[in-house]
This record gives sequence, structure tokens and C-alpha cells, in this order.
Amino acid sequence: MSTESMMRALGEQARAASRELARSSTGARNEALLATARALDASRETLQAENRKDLEAGRDKGLDEAMLDRLELTGARIDTMIEGLRQVAGLTDPVGVITDMEYRPSGIQVGRMRVPLGVIGIIYESRPNVTVDAASLCIKSGNATVLRGGSEASHSNQAIAGCVAQGLREAGLPETGVQVVGTTDREAVGHLIRMPEYVDVIVPRGGKSLIERISNEASVPVIKHLDGICHSFLDRDADPEKAVSVTLNAKTQRYGTCNTLETLLVDAPVAESLLPPIAEQLQSIGVELRGCATTRAILPEAGEATEEDWATEYLAPVLSIRVVDGLDAAMEHINRYSSQHTDSIITENYTRARRFLTEVDSSSVMVNASTRFADGFEYGLGAEIGISTDKLHARGPVGLEGLTSQKYVVFGDGHVRD
Amino acid sequence: MSTESMMRALGEQARAASRELARSSTGARNEALLATARALDASRETLQAENRKDLEAGRDKGLDEAMLDRLELTGARIDTMIEGLRQVAGLTDPVGVITDMEYRPSGIQVGRMRVPLGVIGIIYESRPNVTVDAASLCIKSGNATVLRGGSEASHSNQAIAGCVAQGLREAGLPETGVQVVGTTDREAVGHLIRMPEYVDVIVPRGGKSLIERISNEASVPVIKHLDGICHSFLDRDADPEKAVSVTLNAKTQRYGTCNTLETLLVDAPVAESLLPPIAEQLQSIGVELRGCATTRAILPEAGEATEEDWATEYLAPVLSIRVVDGLDAAMEHINRYSSQHTDSIITENYTRARRFLTEVDSSSVMVNASTRFADGFEYGLGAEIGISTDKLHARGPVGLEGLTSQKYVVFGDGHVRD
Repeated sequence: MSTESMMRALGEQARAASRELARSSTGARNEALLATARALDASRETLQAENRKDLEAGRDKGLDEAMLDRLELTGARIDTMIEGLRQVAGLTDPVGVITDMEYRPSGIQVGRMRVPLGVIGIIYESRPNVTVDAASLCIKSGNATVLRGGSEASHSNQAIAGCVAQGLREAGLPETGVQVVGTTDREAVGHLIRMPEYVDVIVPRGGKSLIERISNEASVPVIKHLDGICHSFLDRDADPEKAVSVTLNAKTQRYGTCNTLETLLVDAPVAESLLPPIAEQLQSIGVELRGCATTRAILPEAGEATEEDWATEYLAPVLSIRVVDGLDAAMEHINRYSSQHTDSIITENYTRARRFLTEVDSSSVMVNASTRFADGFEYGLGAEIGISTDKLHARGPVGLEGLTSQKYVVFGDGHVRD
Repeated sequence: MSTESMMRALGEQARAASRELARSSTGARNEALLATARALDASRETLQAENRKDLEAGRDKGLDEAMLDRLELTGARIDTMIEGLRQVAGLTDPVGVITDMEYRPSGIQVGRMRVPLGVIGIIYESRPNVTVDAASLCIKSGNATVLRGGSEASHSNQAIAGCVAQGLREAGLPETGVQVVGTTDREAVGHLIRMPEYVDVIVPRGGKSLIERISNEASVPVIKHLDGICHSFLDRDADPEKAVSVTLNAKTQRYGTCNTLETLLVDAPVAESLLPPIAEQLQSIGVELRGCATTRAILPEAGEATEEDWATEYLAPVLSIRVVDGLDAAMEHINRYSSQHTDSIITENYTRARRFLTEVDSSSVMVNASTRFADGFEYGLGAEIGISTDKLHARGPVGLEGLTSQKYVVFGDGHVRD
């Protein structure tokens, strides 16, 4: 069978399974998650044996240590997957929730019912735990899923898929509700993202080049996350203590995440008082500083920030710093260079806080808080399939609600339109 | 200047204007709508003189009477445009509404703020009133707009655009907030739908071929409406009186609208009792009937419905009829042929009503009501820019909310992440 006809067969099965999942009970979907957790727990040896095949092949292919580390299914990681399934089972079911039910002057009663999107295609790179995380959110929200993981993790992913299939089967749900693409043929992705008749949305998870390629080529809608070039603006009325601690946290709590601070903007009147204590602490833990000319006059040890720095997501212990003259200049910089992910103002000034919230067009805008809070768990979504930097449909952290849509429901009593 | 560079310049202006509109006050945006209404009222002579140029050119080009009628700006139609502007000004402002503000265990307070999408491109055919209707919804929701109307209406559209520009100016808002593409070069559309850096969403309004072409070629997301192949299912427990009156209304209240009934499904046990009275009334007003074999056995005067009929949006006094054996067979037909626009069940049975609502995957699902109610005004949206048959973002009638997005807002007091 050609890759194309294999993918189309898989899509057709996913579409059929999505109908069954959409009308399945909350109890059955939760049971599928709990049964998958039990299956993973009972299959630890198999999972780790299959994972070793991937690790060995990875070593032979010369994957670097960081990639091999991401690929490894340790006992603790299996624990985390199991715990994740139990947590998702415990979340409120979004499916079928009816809201805004109101009588209209005509006498009909109109509301909205939350419904699954249908079939969700997820394309991701080497971490095998994504297989379970993504599948669990899709099952919970009544969607069928087609998962396409990295070829490096193919043995691990198939072993995990076996546990998910067992979970679905035990709950009386179709095994084809979650399908892991078996072939490592790269062509498979090209078909998956161009089958709108079978796939309702694509969620790519991985590096920027993967995501750009997919959104350029897809004819299916994509919920995507590109850069996280996040800013903090230390306003002239910032509380100095909050300014220092929030900046430190936003830059250094983790370097490699999309909500990490990449550019610090400092209001000119407070640059001389705030920059030295911040720089001292950052440099003491090895963060490289790159500044504008004014910054370098205050911090002679800082390197020079070029135009390219303002547009770079470092994902590393590097911070670019620019001194700006007031809120408008800060927002001008943000509107120009921000990836519209997460931007924060540190201030005690009511009016400027309010303007920042209103006028900065990013998926998360914050006052006196670390950009590191931009996360589905921290926001109370219970789970996160990704962070969207798009404006349509889902914006910011995407949880179960982002995997659903709303349809209108109308109740009448033989009502006709005049 | 090439069409491409003209369109890019227009896009850049729209992007800049969208920032001003996004932070403008509710009062200023409402004033722009009311001032536009006053400008239209004061420009009736100019509007009709410009419209006559379009009508004359249309006659010379051999447009048919229906098209010329749609093109004409009568006094009554100008009244309707003015009234529409006043109504939109009276709607609640969706922009800036903050919901779901909650404290999280970390101490941060997280909510969502409704914000404009940015720049909305609207591509439509010959009715010049769309220029005002679409512009008013975009202004109200804080979005900038690029409007591209049919070339047949270019003089009328430019005259209307002049009134909108005057309204924006009087309210202190940027005139470039609403731009009507001047050139009638067809290439302009191709550029408009492929400028994601300047345009956030495209709303095509017109025939199916226009919409299909645009959604195939666009790199900007499209809120689209394709077919309206709407069904009513007369269940075995339907109240006969409701069954007859709802079917009549759904098919005949207007023939040319997307929420008009196109296929009637009748449960086998009630086909012999329900079909004759329905057929009699429909035929008395000239509706052609096309039925399955069972239907034709009951209604010998009906023509034969072919496979093609089930998949056709007639937009005409024609109804296809199929006798099915129970709810599951009805839903199987609907899931196969429905355009997922609006489908209705007529029944007194609680469980089947509930199953229909849950299992039919259409943007509007109804019990005991005419499909003709699927409409933004009837649903209480206050206005409608279109009806979406997509699942992502906006589904069903799209009002002001569909022209907005939500961003997360986070309030802290120097909070950092552990």
C-alpha cells in the first residue's frame, strides 16, 4: 500500500472513531484513561525494552546526549505519564456543557453546546511521553487522534500506543480513536496535513522550523506556537524589589522554555538604580548581558545588543536589555519585536498598568508577575496541549477547551419564523 | 504602482489603524457609526447618482434583472443601512470585557480579556449595502477592515466608503480604519488573502465558487460559509401539527437562504400519515417534490430523487424527501449529506431529541423549530457578518464576538514562579 493510501485509510478510521468518541459517556472516556494508566504500569518492562531499542539506534545514529536524554523512558518518566493520565481523568468533562441558554423574543430558546472538534493530528519530535499526554487530552475531550512522533522514538511510541489501545478497548471505545502512524516515511506528514476531510486540526509540537514548514504546507487548520520572545518592562514607578525578583525569576527559573524572559526594557529614569542590582545577580549565575548604548554606559561589562538580538529567542542564559523613554517607547518596542506570546509590566502606576494590559497585543499580558507563569497548569486549565501564538480559535495556553468547539442548540415547541 | 505594492501599502495602513482602533474608546467607535449614519443621510443624492453609474454600466454589460436589483441603492435601502448603523452603535461593546478572573494557588489572578482580531479582509459580491454592514461590525469590534466589493458596484462602494471615512474622521479615529480597495483588478484579491502580516482573517461573502477559490488560495485564515443543505427529521413521535407547520415554514418562508430546508427525512411509521398533508400544502404553492421510492409510493406525483439531490442545496422551490427507518438511519443520512449547517428534529420523544442534539454534528441543531431560525439576529447576536460552517474559532452565525479573540491577563504583586 502506498503511504498516501495508508494515511487515507488511517484518516477514514479516525473519522469513524471520532463519531463514536463524540457520543461516548464521560465515564467511558475517563475509564479509558485510567485503564491506559494501569496498562502502562503493567508494561514497564516492555516499555523500557522497546525504549532501549530506540536509544541504541539513536546512539548508532550519533544523536547527542541532550536528545538521547529526551528520548529515554526512565521509571520516573513512566510514573509521570501514569500520574498525568490520572490527573486528566479527574478534570471536568468539557463535552456537552450547555451555556448561555436564553429565550428569544420569537419564543425559541437558544444556547451553545461544547462539542469535540473531531479528529486532531499531532506531529511531535522525540519525547515519547507526548504520545500519552496528547492522547489523553484528545480522549478526554472526545476527539479521535492521529499521532505522528519522531522516527527516533518509534519503538517507544508503538509500545505506548499499545497501552492506549488496551485502555480504549477495556473502556469499550474504538481502538482506532488513537492511532500512532507506524511508518517513519517523512511523506506521511505531508498527507496528514492535507486531508481536511479526515483531520479537523493539526497541532505541531517541536522546533520552529518544523512548525513553520507544517503551517506553510497544511490545508488543515493549524494551532501553532512559534517564538516566545517575551519582554518585561520595568516602569519608572516599579517597586524596585519586585522589579529585581520578577526579572530574575523570568530569566533564570528555566532557560529553555517559551515563556522565559528574553528582552528586558527599562524606563530611563530608573535604569541607573535598577540595572546594577539586576546585572549583578544575573552575572553571578552566569547570564550573559547584551545591551543598548545607554545600558552599556550603566553596565560597562555588558556586550552590545544588535538589531538581531531584539528579534531573537535565546532559550539560553542570555538577556538583551534596552533602556527606553517611557511606556509608549516600551510598547513600540514590544509591538515591533514581541512574538505576541507573553509580556509583562512591573509598575505601581494604575494608569500605565491598565494601558499596558489593553494596548499590548500578546496572548498573555501581565502586571507585576513573572512571564514564567504563562502556562496551562499555572492558569488552571488542568492540562496543556501547547501554547498558541495565533489569534483565531485558541490563544495562549491551550487546554481541553481549545480542543473543542461550540454548536448552537435551539429548543422550540413547533416554532416557525414570521 | 503595481497592484501588489498598492495592496501591501493598504495592508500596512490597515495594520497601523488597527492598533489605534484597538485602543479607542467605546464612545469614539459608537460616534463613528452614528456620524457615518448622518453622512449617509446627508449624501443620499450623491449615493444615488454614483449608484446610477453602476446600474448603467451593469445594463451595458448585460447583467440580469436579479443582479441589477441587488445592485440598486433605493431610498429604502439607504434607510436600512442608516438604521443598521444605529442598531450596531446600540449593541454592547465586546472589546475589553474581562471574564473568568480567578485567583490561582500561586497567588496570581488570571482572567481573559476580549480583544479585536486586528485587520479583517472582507470580499463580497454586488450588494453595496454589505460595505456599510461589514464596516460597522468591524468598527464596533475595534478592528480595521479592508473591503473588496464586486467591480459592478465600484462607484456605489466608493461613495459609501466616503461616508464611512467622514464618520471615522468626525469621531477622531483613523480614516484608514476602513479601506475600500479602489482597483477592480482581480489580482488584488489574490494579494489580500496572502498577506498574513497585515490581515488576520478573511471573511468571503458570496457564492460557493468564490468562497472555495478563496479558501483554497488563502494563507490568511478564512471564516467561511459553504453550503446550507439543511434537514428536518419528522420522528415517529412528532406532533403532526408541528411537523406540518415547521416543514412548511422551513421550506417556504424564503427559498434562497442558506438555512432553508432542502431535504425532509420522514420516519417510516408516520410517512403515510404525514407526507400527504405536507405535500398538498407545498404543491399548492408550487414547490416541486423529489422523493425516494417509498416516498413516491405514497406521493405518486413526486419526481424521483437521485443521489445528486441529497447533496444539492436547491435555493429554490424544490424539496427532496426520503423515508428512513428511525433516528439512526436519519442521522446516518444527515452525517453523510448535511453541510453541517442546520438540522432539526420534530419529536415529542425526550430521548431521541436528546440524542439528535448530541450526535448531529452541525453548527445549529434544533428540536421542534424551523431551520429558518439559524440566524444571528434570531439568536440574539444583534448582528451577523456571516454564518460559519467551519469548526474552529466561530461556528454558526458570527456576530461581534466572532470578530474578536481573547487574551490572558495576569495580575500579580511581584509574584515569581517556584
